[in-house]
Formats: sequence, C-alpha cells, structure tokens
Amino acid sequence: MFSFHILYKDLRSRARMGVISTPHGDIQTPAFIPVGTQATVKTLTPDEIKETGTQMFFVNTYHQYLRPGDEIVKKMGGLHKFMGWDGPLITDSGGFQVFSLGREDAGKLVKITDDGVEFKSHIDGSKHFFTPEKSLAIQKNLGADIILPLDECTFYPATHEYTQSANRRTHQWAERTIREYGRQNMANRQALYGIAQGGTYEDLRKESATFLSTLPFCGYAIGGVSVGESKETMAQVCDWQVPLLPPEKPRHLLGVGELDDVFNFIERGIDTFDCVMPTRIARMGQVLVNSKCQIPNSKQYQKSKFQKKYEIDISKTVYKTDKKPLDPTCDCYVCKRFTRAYIHHLFRAHELLAYRLATYHNVYWMHSFVSTIRASIEEGTFLDVKRHWLDTHESNPPEE
Amino acid sequence: MFSFHILYKDLRSRARMGVISTPHGDIQTPAFIPVGTQATVKTLTPDEIKETGTQMFFVNTYHQYLRPGDEIVKKMGGLHKFMGWDGPLITDSGGFQVFSLGREDAGKLVKITDDGVEFKSHIDGSKHFFTPEKSLAIQKNLGADIILPLDECTFYPATHEYTQSANRRTHQWAERTIREYGRQNMANRQALYGIAQGGTYEDLRKESATFLSTLPFCGYAIGGVSVGESKETMAQVCDWQVPLLPPEKPRHLLGVGELDDVFNFIERGIDTFDCVMPTRIARMGQVLVNSKCQIPNSKQYQKSKFQKKYEIDISKTVYKTDKKPLDPTCDCYVCKRFTRAYIHHLFRAHELLAYRLATYHNVYWMHSFVSTIRASIEEGTFLDVKRHWLDTHESNPPEE
Repeated sequence: MFSFHILYKDLRSRARMGVISTPHGDIQTPAFIPVGTQATVKTLTPDEIKETGTQMFFVNTYHQYLRPGDEIVKKMGGLHKFMGWDGPLITDSGGFQVFSLGREDAGKLVKITDDGVEFKSHIDGSKHFFTPEKSLAIQKNLGADIILPLDECTFYPATHEYTQSANRRTHQWAERTIREYGRQNMANRQALYGIAQGGTYEDLRKESATFLSTLPFCGYAIGGVSVGESKETMAQVCDWQVPLLPPEKPRHLLGVGELDDVFNFIERGIDTFDCVMPTRIARMGQVLVNSKCQIPNSKQYQKSKFQKKYEIDISKTVYKTDKKPLDPTCDCYVCKRFTRAYIHHLFRAHELLAYRLATYHNVYWMHSFVSTIRASIEEGTFLDVKRHWLDTHESNPPEE
Repeated sequence: MFSFHILYKDLRSRARMGVISTPHGDIQTPAFIPVGTQATVKTLTPDEIKETGTQMFFVNTYHQYLRPGDEIVKKMGGLHKFMGWDGPLITDSGGFQVFSLGREDAGKLVKITDDGVEFKSHIDGSKHFFTPEKSLAIQKNLGADIILPLDECTFYPATHEYTQSANRRTHQWAERTIREYGRQNMANRQALYGIAQGGTYEDLRKESATFLSTLPFCGYAIGGVSVGESKETMAQVCDWQVPLLPPEKPRHLLGVGELDDVFNFIERGIDTFDCVMPTRIARMGQVLVNSKCQIPNSKQYQKSKFQKKYEIDISKTVYKTDKKPLDPTCDCYVCKRFTRAYIHHLFRAHELLAYRLATYHNVYWMHSFVSTIRASIEEGTFLDVKRHWLDTHESNPPEE
C-alpha cells in the first residue's frame, strides 16, 4: 500500500525526484506539505486545498487529541472522512507540541520519564500522559497515511549531555513504537517513519541516523531542526544524517520551508518538508511573489534576507490602487480574479476574505515553486535553477 | 436600462412576483438581498455569492466612502470591478450609518442642518459632511445599479414633532437628489429609489408616501423600520405606505428579514428586502435549518420565538458526533460536503473556515426559502404556504 520510487537523481547533488504512493494517492516529490494544525488548512475548504496543488497535508496529533478528541475523529470515520479530504495525510506524534510547552514554561507543564511524557492541555489545563504506544494508538484512530513515533525533541541551545539522553529516549521509544506498530498490524494502512534527532552535535546526529536505519521504518523524518539554530547548522544536520539513512526510503524534513531552505534541503536529499510559513504569513498580509514584483533597488530590498525578496506586504498603502494581481506571473484563482487593490482593502478592513485569498495564493505559489524544482531535477538543471534564484537578488536586483 | 415587470399577483394579499432588470442583470422578486457592508459579503468570494443564489447585494456607502474611499473605487472601475462581482448591486445613501452614530452618542458625533449632516468617522474621528448632492456623487463613483437618496432616519421612540421635521428634511433632500440626479444624467446607468419615512405615525407615514409618489423615482424603499419598534408596528407601516406608492414600481424594505417578517412583508407588497441576519448569525454559529431539525417538544423549542425554530447553534455539544449535514433538506455545497460534527469542531477551534461554511449555508438557505415563496405566489398558494410555515410550530411541533 505504501511505496517510494525514485524517478530521477541529480548528478551534481543529492536532489532526487520521485513518487510516494499511499492508500489515498500519490505524492510527487520533492513536495511541500502544508500544515492543517486543527484538521483544516486555515481558511481553506478541502476542495481548495486540492485546487492549490496540495498533494498531502500535515495534521497535528496533539491538537486532534485534545480537540475534538481522537476517539471522536475515529467515530466520524477517521481524519479523511471527518475533514472531507480524500488525499494523503501525515500526522506527527504530538511530541513536538508537548516539548514546546515544556520549553516555554521551563518544564512546569511537562514531565518527561523513560516511560513517556506528562503534560497539561493548553486549552483547559487538564493533565495527560503520552507514551510511544499511546501516540501510536491516537494516530491509529486518526488514520493518516504517514505517521510518526513519539520522540524527544531538544531545542537549541541544548548541552551535549542532555541531547545524548534525549537521543537515547528517542531511540528506545522508536523501538517500542515499531514493536507496537507490528502488534497492531498497522503496516497495510499507515506508513511509519522514524525520526532522527541529535540536536546540533555531529556525533549524536550520526548515531541517531545509524541507529534508526537498523529499524524497519517506511521512511525517515529529520527532526529538531528549525528550533533556534542557524540555517548553516540546519544544512549541516542534513549533511550528517542523509548519507546514513537508507537511500531507497523517503526523507521528510520537519518544520522547514523558507525559499532558500527549500533549495538547500532538496539539494541535500530531502523529499518532503512541511512548514507553516506560507499559511501563517498569508494571514498577516505577506504574499509570496516573483521577486520582480519588488520595488527594485529599494532600501528594504537591498537589506532584506532572501525570503523577503519574495514577499510583499499587501496591506501597505502603495497597493491601494494597484490593478495588478498579487503576482502577475501566478495563474492561481486569486491572481486570475482579484486585484492587489481589492485585497489591500480587505486587509485594511480586517475582512475574513482577506485571509482566505492570501492563504490560497501562498499555498498555490509555494507548490508551483516546488514543481519548478521538480522539473529542474528531471531536466538535470537543479543546481542552475537554484543558483539563478539565489543569485538574482544578490548581484542584480531585478527591475519592476 | 432599468425596469420592473410584475408577472403574478396574489389574489388574496398584496404579494406579487416579478422581475427587476438592471444594467448588470435581472432580479427575480420577491428577493432577499444580502449585505456586503465593506464591499464583501463577509467570508465569501463573489463566485460563492453567486453560487448561493444571490441576485443582488447591498454595499454601504458610508463604509466605502471612508474606506477605501469612493474616489479609489471609481479609479478601480467602480464597485463591480473592484469586487469582481458582475451582478446587480444596491448602495444606500450613507445616512443610516451616520444617524446611527448620532443615536449612539446622543448627537455628539453628528450635527444635522437643512443643508446636510456633519459626522465624525468611526475609524479615525475625522470630520465629514454629507449633503444629498454629496451622497449622490459618492454613489455615482461607486456605480451600483440601484441607489438611494440621503434621508433622515429617526429611531424608535421619536416624538411626532421631531419625526415631522425629519420628514420635512427627508422630502426636501429627496427633491434635491432628484434634481441633481437629472443634472448628472445618471438615469441610464443607476436607478434612484425614493425612501419613505415617517416613524411610527400614521399621518406622517402616509404624508411621506404620498409626497414621494409625486417624484419620478424608479422605485421606493421603506425606511426607518426595524429601528426598535415592534413587529406589529413594522407591519402597520407597510399597510399605511404601500397602497400609496405607485403600484408599478418596485418596493424595497430596508434592514428587515427574520423569517416571519419575510412572509408578513411580502404579503404586504414588498418586492425586495436586505438584512444582515443570515450572515451575522452565521458567524456566531447559528445556522438556518428546516424546523424539523429541532429537537421536538424540547423546552427551548416550545418557548422560543418563530425565528428560533429555524436555527440551530452548531457549537453546542449535541452536534459533536452528528454525521448529518447542517440541514438534511438543504442541497447547498456545505450540506453536500460537510457534517455537523466537523463544522462544530471548526467553531469550537475558532477556525476561520467555520464562519465561511455557516455563512455560505445561511445565505443559500435564505435564498431557497424566498424562492419557495416566489413559487407559491406563481401557484396562488402564498397564504397557504405562509400559514403552513407560521403555524407548524405553534400547534404541532415537528418530530426529528
């Protein structure tokens, strides 16, 4: 029911193009995976999620477990039926959210033992306990196509000693999860990925990738990146771990997706990655655009980081009478149908339609960006396309 | 460019069925006119507004004048182009919002003279002055198919003396508007309706209808109802004014639209009516349903007023695992696609998709409700259908 086929490999990097098959359909890789935290990609209907080019999206187990409750979702026929989405889905273990709570409240809300992790709900303060087996049982109720084992995510900075003990637990939990996964006979419906951790330490990252490779996971996620460390460190983590993971298995990068990251991680062998960036910035009026949409040579343009070259803040007064679409090179529904001026007005008036239109556009834009990359891998021009994108703004700011 | 044809007249009441033609298309009457205050029917795209069965919607001149500004809208090609809506539109004069400000702040924000009305913006406190000519000029910039003259709306309760002086001003302003409308040569693109006022006083209501009938308006709106008086008084106002208005002209009722009102006013000869009810209650989780969806004989059911028999609060726990659509008898996109349980979850999680789905359903529901009434007028069964709806819950609470 689950398979991964590599169709093209880039000869000058670890980039590869392929297809993941799941019980709910295929995912052409590399793929951007939008996030639908509370069983909805914020503001969009499932039909629109599909229209934007989304192949699979990410639902958070922690949120589903607390609201509406995984038993409720199960009663409703699982996440797919509950949401009205018939494509592939991925859920996490719930661990990341729990350990994030612990990070924010310096451990007051969260207690970790070798057995599992106790936490208090952010909604009503009620106490809960997650074990690897419990997380798996919840994810079985949710029924996503790809699922993840409970792991202990460390946040930057963390000592070598602490990271090592977190690694040990992550590996023990991985073994327990694999065992329970077999006992529950889940393999024909849900593919279990392993999560490689190890913080910012080369030895621990390598140890984690090596250890997890010995377990029969269907794919591998790299976790604990984008938790405060630099982009350079994030890239290094991939360089350490990817070569040690089974090359025939798909690799997911958790929680990463700025535009330069996308190039850098695909180059390093990542097949799928999830990120809230396109949907989150949309609700703040930041829309993704071809860099030619920027005002050339402007101070803001010169100073800003790479990602910013591909964003405009549609709520700015300069767009008040702009009859152009958000991105004149984009062929999404929003760009075919509405002007910047109207969307500017909707943001200024705090109208809910604003958030919808910007979200739809950003998700569509991100998918077409990644589909350009897929095509470049097939054509053997991946590194040239990367250089073109990343160099453009450095040496030669484009003209309006 | 503008016309009104009556196709069927009910023999036992003043109800009539017809069609209003405008430069942007026809409106089958009686018709419910949703409200798009800030140049958007909250949460919906123009394509969805059409899908729900909306023939025309209402945009508020006061809001457009302040944000984005009518000059901006003109620059963008008028309201239709600005919003991406190619169907008929109606705008008001801005007066109602201005006089509402005056009501709330006991006159501190608003100064009325025979020339016009001064007010302070609710957005930034800036001072503005509306005259009949100014309101018309703004509405010319906006370019709606049906427009309204500046009038002085009184709020219940108001003395006879005050209402009389407001009436006098409303009539003078109507004459000035008609004069300017001719001078500006607007008749071939925008149809000007008169607004009949007169508070709760029979003599003033009759005087207003009689006076305005002598002016060459394309249609008539009845204003100053639903401003605090009883439903009985609202019905009386129609009984006083409708017989005095030219029978061949369309009649709009401003700001009214609970379900029993719809029957009562159509019975009294109203052709179109606008109301924020279906969109506003949607955002609070109140969805319109066939009364059979209610829990029969429940206390809440027995006690509540007519409108409430046709609403459920989808955020209530009872819907947590309800696999039915919002209204099993409704064939809208939302009812075909989603369960109550999912929409319940979205409301509980404060997800923006919740407000969209409930709004879409309520607007669709309202239009199909009114289209049932249109059909009943054609078939000569209007009063029977009315009795059936209004009696059902009184004598014989329906079963689930």
